[in-house]
Amino acid sequence: MQKLKEETQKMVRHIKSYQIIRRSLMSCAFQYTVIFFILGAICSVILSSFSFAKPYAIWLFAFTHLASIIFTIEYLLRILAAPANYPNQKAYKARFRYLFSFYGLVDFVAILPFLMIYLLWDTEVVHLIILPYIFIVFKLIRYSKSFRLIGHVLHEVRDELITAYTACGILVCFSAILMYYIERSAQPEAFSNIGDGLWWSIVSFTTVGYGDIYPITPLGRILSSFISLVGIAMIALPTGIISSAFMTAMQRKNKK
Amino acid sequence: MQKLKEETQKMVRHIKSYQIIRRSLMSCAFQYTVIFFILGAICSVILSSFSFAKPYAIWLFAFTHLASIIFTIEYLLRILAAPANYPNQKAYKARFRYLFSFYGLVDFVAILPFLMIYLLWDTEVVHLIILPYIFIVFKLIRYSKSFRLIGHVLHEVRDELITAYTACGILVCFSAILMYYIERSAQPEAFSNIGDGLWWSIVSFTTVGYGDIYPITPLGRILSSFISLVGIAMIALPTGIISSAFMTAMQRKNKK
Amino acid sequence: MQKLKEETQKMVRHIKSYQIIRRSLMSCAFQYTVIFFILGAICSVILSSFSFAKPYAIWLFAFTHLASIIFTIEYLLRILAAPANYPNQKAYKARFRYLFSFYGLVDFVAILPFLMIYLLWDTEVVHLIILPYIFIVFKLIRYSKSFRLIGHVLHEVRDELITAYTACGILVCFSAILMYYIERSAQPEAFSNIGDGLWWSIVSFTTVGYGDIYPITPLGRILSSFISLVGIAMIALPTGIISSAFMTAMQRKNKK
Amino acid sequence: MQKLKEETQKMVRHIKSYQIIRRSLMSCAFQYTVIFFILGAICSVILSSFSFAKPYAIWLFAFTHLASIIFTIEYLLRILAAPANYPNQKAYKARFRYLFSFYGLVDFVAILPFLMIYLLWDTEVVHLIILPYIFIVFKLIRYSKSFRLIGHVLHEVRDELITAYTACGILVCFSAILMYYIERSAQPEAFSNIGDGLWWSIVSFTTVGYGDIYPITPLGRILSSFISLVGIAMIALPTGIISSAFMTAMQRKNKK
Repeated sequence: MQKLKEETQKMVRHIKSYQIIRRSLMSCAFQYTVIFFILGAICSVILSSFSFAKPYAIWLFAFTHLASIIFTIEYLLRILAAPANYPNQKAYKARFRYLFSFYGLVDFVAILPFLMIYLLWDTEVVHLIILPYIFIVFKLIRYSKSFRLIGHVLHEVRDELITAYTACGILVCFSAILMYYIERSAQPEAFSNIGDGLWWSIVSFTTVGYGDIYPITPLGRILSSFISLVGIAMIALPTGIISSAFMTAMQRKNKK
Repeated sequence: MQKLKEETQKMVRHIKSYQIIRRSLMSCAFQYTVIFFILGAICSVILSSFSFAKPYAIWLFAFTHLASIIFTIEYLLRILAAPANYPNQKAYKARFRYLFSFYGLVDFVAILPFLMIYLLWDTEVVHLIILPYIFIVFKLIRYSKSFRLIGHVLHEVRDELITAYTACGILVCFSAILMYYIERSAQPEAFSNIGDGLWWSIVSFTTVGYGDIYPITPLGRILSSFISLVGIAMIALPTGIISSAFMTAMQRKNKK
Repeated sequence: MQKLKEETQKMVRHIKSYQIIRRSLMSCAFQYTVIFFILGAICSVILSSFSFAKPYAIWLFAFTHLASIIFTIEYLLRILAAPANYPNQKAYKARFRYLFSFYGLVDFVAILPFLMIYLLWDTEVVHLIILPYIFIVFKLIRYSKSFRLIGHVLHEVRDELITAYTACGILVCFSAILMYYIERSAQPEAFSNIGDGLWWSIVSFTTVGYGDIYPITPLGRILSSFISLVGIAMIALPTGIISSAFMTAMQRKNKK
Repeated sequence: MQKLKEETQKMVRHIKSYQIIRRSLMSCAFQYTVIFFILGAICSVILSSFSFAKPYAIWLFAFTHLASIIFTIEYLLRILAAPANYPNQKAYKARFRYLFSFYGLVDFVAILPFLMIYLLWDTEVVHLIILPYIFIVFKLIRYSKSFRLIGHVLHEVRDELITAYTACGILVCFSAILMYYIERSAQPEAFSNIGDGLWWSIVSFTTVGYGDIYPITPLGRILSSFISLVGIAMIALPTGIISSAFMTAMQRKNKK
């Protein structure tokens, strides 16, 4: 009697599409279909912004529409199949857990614009709400295997990275305020407020250097030179932290 | 008799606010209040530079004023509590030591503008002396735990970093003077003196590249290319030094 | 009888120029001749683009022509000698294998423009087909010994590098689309489509920062600052991966 | 008799200023005098290029003149003292060895402009020959202790660095020629020859990005994006090589 019940539960789970999404050939086809529609939806969002694609705008919109339907089906299936991922928890708890997990939220945001068109019944808002489409790119994370290693390494050196960024932040603030007081009389247009100073500071610190804003007074140039040279060592900090964490992780892996 | 004296001294120490600042719940509240006012003061200094914040300037000034009062109280409390930090030294020596320590100087400079307003009795100088407010950001260093690890690692490779920076300095000087003699006839405006050469040299070497000054003669471009390619290896030097020091520090930590 | 046949085969192999290309003094002379003509051909392609070299264009063309003849002879000799490189395979199979190997394809593409001139019997097309000459530079890879070590290290961390680049790709796409929607109303010229957004995104992410396109709205600047700061850690990822792989490879070498 | 001769030789060596330059208090004073004049001479060369220093030009020139006299005396003393550095070799051989060593050549070039003024008897040439003054900066290398460690590490990974730079060189050439053929019709001014292509290629590859030359065609931008992304890994190569060599060198040092 007990055994029969267990068997039935197992069968029900089968039906609840767990094995459809996870292991069978059908699940594989399902995965590749989703990946195809993710990449396709990103491409159509990008293409639809080009002026030469104006005549085909309706087709691109139709494609993203189709992709949204696929993602909605995927979302519903994943909610159904959630208990299979957390076998020790009750079904409704497992579903809640999925809904508020990182992937669950990404999956939800990715179908939001599609839902809003139907709820608002207004195709004019489509341009306003195209923005959530960009969250589709995060759906790709699920399908990459090595993301976990990188995530693990970054998680391990969490504290050191936060410190390095805090140090960067303090230096950026300090140099932004200082540069604002040095340069504001010489270039009142470029350094109109400390916000401009912060922008200059970050652009210089990360060695991007667009060239839209830079010091012209001798004192400002000396400060900027000093900042840039310190910046080399600062950029070396996260690099050093991540490098050494990777080294340790790889040595551990090699020993096994 | 002896014991009683010791006990009394201990009590006096308690009163001298050591445990207020260090361990008790009150000390915790004290710390978070100070951190709140540090961040608040930085924000108001930044905000007060924006033109849209002109109408609220008086409130922002009032806030920095209040923060200064808090910092003055903190400064006085820390002077009082100094003996508790150096228990083996006499009270006045411990206080002197705090006054001339890094944190003591930062704490002093941070309240300097506030003191000057009252000593000079002139609110017009407030714009001139707002500059010392930037030292408030350094007060944050005290409250970050991992700064010590980074500081320790940087201290360990002190000599190598100094050498790397000396090597950078020699190369920067060399290329600045050389570039000045190559480019001054072609662009007398841009390369008006070796100071411009040094500016170009540092901006190129750190790969910032604002684009305000760059070689246009074939010879200057060849020199610049060479400098940039050597620069890759030069930037690799501090990175390599810091990375390997971090690695060693982390391996030592893992063994424990 | 059997022995005689073997000996004959060996001699034939000798004649089939294996030892000419591989070990003897003649092979050495052959190698340096080819390297000389590779470097010479690259130099003449570069020189022929300068306006001051117009009068000597015919000589430069003649040199690249001569180099092409040398490369054609080399190509034919290598096809003949191919069986010596794969001694366990049949002669025609070894030749096919060479033809479709990386080096075989490079060798073929490098002589393509030369062949096309004679097949098309038209010297006017020479400017159109000069492009394949750039594949000549890849012929240099064969003659560098340490390329194998670098190639080996990069191959070992293949998966991690792909992940790092995938993460970069996702972030680049995300920020490109987001920046396009933020900036398109403020600068419709600069951000005319998401292609411009992608261009800005990659230029910022790699810290090149040409300065032809950059955010001007406050929101765009905040996003850009965030992207750049994350970019530091992202650039640290490949650096860390490659550094640690090199470390392991060098430790292994030192133990031997 | 034999002993007396040895003693005399020893005394002569003393007189030949070996111990003056090496160990005694006098040698220390000598060293700091030379360092003072090196730094002073560099400063006066830099200062004399500024327009505000025109009235003091004669004093700056006099100072560099004085420095040159000091350097000449130092050069002669070092020639005299050379045998003490190579005790196993004959005196004239040791002197020749010094003359053609790195330091000997630097010392010679640093006094060249000074000698030329007296040999040519013409103060007008002083502006032309001021250039060799820049070699004075290299005289500083002798007085830095840790340069040897960095030099040793760089020497150890000589082969790998050459390979990394060769790989960079091949990629730079390849992309320069390709970009020239892509962009020359769109911007005939900016990409007038492959020399401009090489300039763009190096500026992009090292992530300096001045912004004086950049692709504007879609194809050029795609190529440039690809180049920049590969550039991240390429810059990681020297960084990785140097980092791991430093790590090994420091581990070896720690074991001792």
